[in-house]
Amino acid sequence: MNPFEEHFILASASPRRSELLKQIGLDFTVEVSECDENINEDDPVKMVEALSFRKASAVSDKHKDAIVIGADTVVAYENEILGKPEDEKEALDMLMFLSDRTHIVCTGVSVISPLRGIYHTFSEVTEVTMYENDRDLLKKYISTKEPLDKAGAYGIQGRGAILVSQINGDYNNVVGLPVSRLFRELIKL
Amino acid sequence: MNPFEEHFILASASPRRSELLKQIGLDFTVEVSECDENINEDDPVKMVEALSFRKASAVSDKHKDAIVIGADTVVAYENEILGKPEDEKEALDMLMFLSDRTHIVCTGVSVISPLRGIYHTFSEVTEVTMYENDRDLLKKYISTKEPLDKAGAYGIQGRGAILVSQINGDYNNVVGLPVSRLFRELIKL
Repeated sequence: MNPFEEHFILASASPRRSELLKQIGLDFTVEVSECDENINEDDPVKMVEALSFRKASAVSDKHKDAIVIGADTVVAYENEILGKPEDEKEALDMLMFLSDRTHIVCTGVSVISPLRGIYHTFSEVTEVTMYENDRDLLKKYISTKEPLDKAGAYGIQGRGAILVSQINGDYNNVVGLPVSRLFRELIKL
Repeated sequence: MNPFEEHFILASASPRRSELLKQIGLDFTVEVSECDENINEDDPVKMVEALSFRKASAVSDKHKDAIVIGADTVVAYENEILGKPEDEKEALDMLMFLSDRTHIVCTGVSVISPLRGIYHTFSEVTEVTMYENDRDLLKKYISTKEPLDKAGAYGIQGRGAILVSQINGDYNNVVGLPVSRLFRELIKL
């Protein structure tokens, strides 16, 4: 397909994912349906792929003629998965743990359009290396509240940028949606 | 110094650099002074370091008590430096050249504050790998006009994101200012 000539439904409430689709110029609306996000899966790649498929399916069930995009992102270190912190203390623990280390960020993406016979899932992995961040800097960062709704307790596209020394892979994947890879996958469909 | 407790002057008219300083929460104003941007230097790292120093100096000369930040960014492939394209044709030539290759983006940054005896310059290099981008996609991208004021003829923070498969290093360095590294350098001053 030509992604610039289609309309998509983004099955995600994340404002960052909406921003990224806007950034590359796709035409879309947002619709989110409830789905069970509990999953018995330890492997981060398999987990995000399965959850992205569930999210897209829940919306696609109601819009069989639409092209629905679902996504799920986790932060992981040696197969230990870090979700969103429950409070400031857990945010500090997570950020101290990630300090001076390289972790991965995995995003699974599913594109579903039953009427076109499209059931496509892929994932993208980016390595992120943190500076050695001291407790005072991390506390100051956490006081901005930015970490509290973010997997791994940081937002690379916000003030969290100062914690990160380098990445290896797709930056937007860390933000929450690998739009460049998604664009290539859509062309192939 | 504690960067959150200082006021800076950003010696750059680039809205992207202003956005990045805002993103990490620094307090600053923008002031730009004319300076000679012609330089007899082939090495991209030496070039951006020298030009960032000139830009910061030109503003610092008028504000000796201020902390002035200057920056300059170039795109290079095997020491061939790609500036801003002069027109759409040159933009297409550049993007065809960069297609399916890994190039580097170098940003030089200078921090100058004569009254504090600070004359500090550093640079950051990021590798950027482009997908194999076909002529039609590149023409469509160029028709958005986004490439025309960008070194290397693309903006990774805009629609140009779809051209890039991965980076190795600091993302914001590709946008125009390695704010994370800058923050660390400021702490050390």
